[in-house]
Amino acid sequence: MVDILHRIAVEDTAPKKVYDALTTLHGLAGWWTENTTGDPTPGGTIAFRFPPGGFDMLVTEAVPGQRVTWEVVDGPEEWIGTTVDWQLRRDGDWTVVLFTHSGWAEPVEFMHHCSTKWGSYMMSLKALLEKGKGAASPNDVHIAYPD
Amino acid sequence: MVDILHRIAVEDTAPKKVYDALTTLHGLAGWWTENTTGDPTPGGTIAFRFPPGGFDMLVTEAVPGQRVTWEVVDGPEEWIGTTVDWQLRRDGDWTVVLFTHSGWAEPVEFMHHCSTKWGSYMMSLKALLEKGKGAASPNDVHIAYPD
Repeated sequence: MVDILHRIAVEDTAPKKVYDALTTLHGLAGWWTENTTGDPTPGGTIAFRFPPGGFDMLVTEAVPGQRVTWEVVDGPEEWIGTTVDWQLRRDGDWTVVLFTHSGWAEPVEFMHHCSTKWGSYMMSLKALLEKGKGAASPNDVHIAYPD
Repeated sequence: MVDILHRIAVEDTAPKKVYDALTTLHGLAGWWTENTTGDPTPGGTIAFRFPPGGFDMLVTEAVPGQRVTWEVVDGPEEWIGTTVDWQLRRDGDWTVVLFTHSGWAEPVEFMHHCSTKWGSYMMSLKALLEKGKGAASPNDVHIAYPD
């Protein structure tokens, strides 16, 4: 088992605002993909779609201002059954976001790609909250070939 | 043992050019930190310095156009003894860069930070090669608190 890890800190932003960006369709559409539908509440499933495909996430935990956890229930084979976890912590005027995408079976090349891509989406989340505008798909940052 | 993984693809760039950016002081200073000194050839040690500190890397492998490997011989405690590995592969007009920073003892919060930071430096390397200008320290992208 290998994990993708990331961390950002978001300036002048309370944990509740980060939580909202992770638990509302409007928030999620602002930093990950504009094509976000479904039910972002605990027990619900969110459908994230991108030009090349997408992911269905079951919301397994959502503690306001503290934690959000998704289980991947549909998407690329390597993602199915993996867990995406967001932990939030206030630090003065900042919110620290600790991200873990765990449960990958093997460190395949696609996992390398997803790690860098998650990193760029973390920066998109930070930009959305600090500046009011993220870089959600289809206007996301290209890290490799044109999507 | 847990690893940091990343992958980018660099457009209109031959593996040799990426290799040069990883094996010359001028290249390294263009995307990682302007304060890069030492000997970037196999068996040499490169000193990378940033405002908060830095790393000394022993060059353990350098295969032109294919692979570069460093062993961390000095720096933060969590880094010492870890391995930073760059694999390069031509794919048409692109060069694929497969990055692994392996040998971390524990997935501590600092490792989350370093993973996101490595991701932003991968984008800096890509920008240097594609557009002629990276975002090397001290002009690097902030992912958390001001350095």
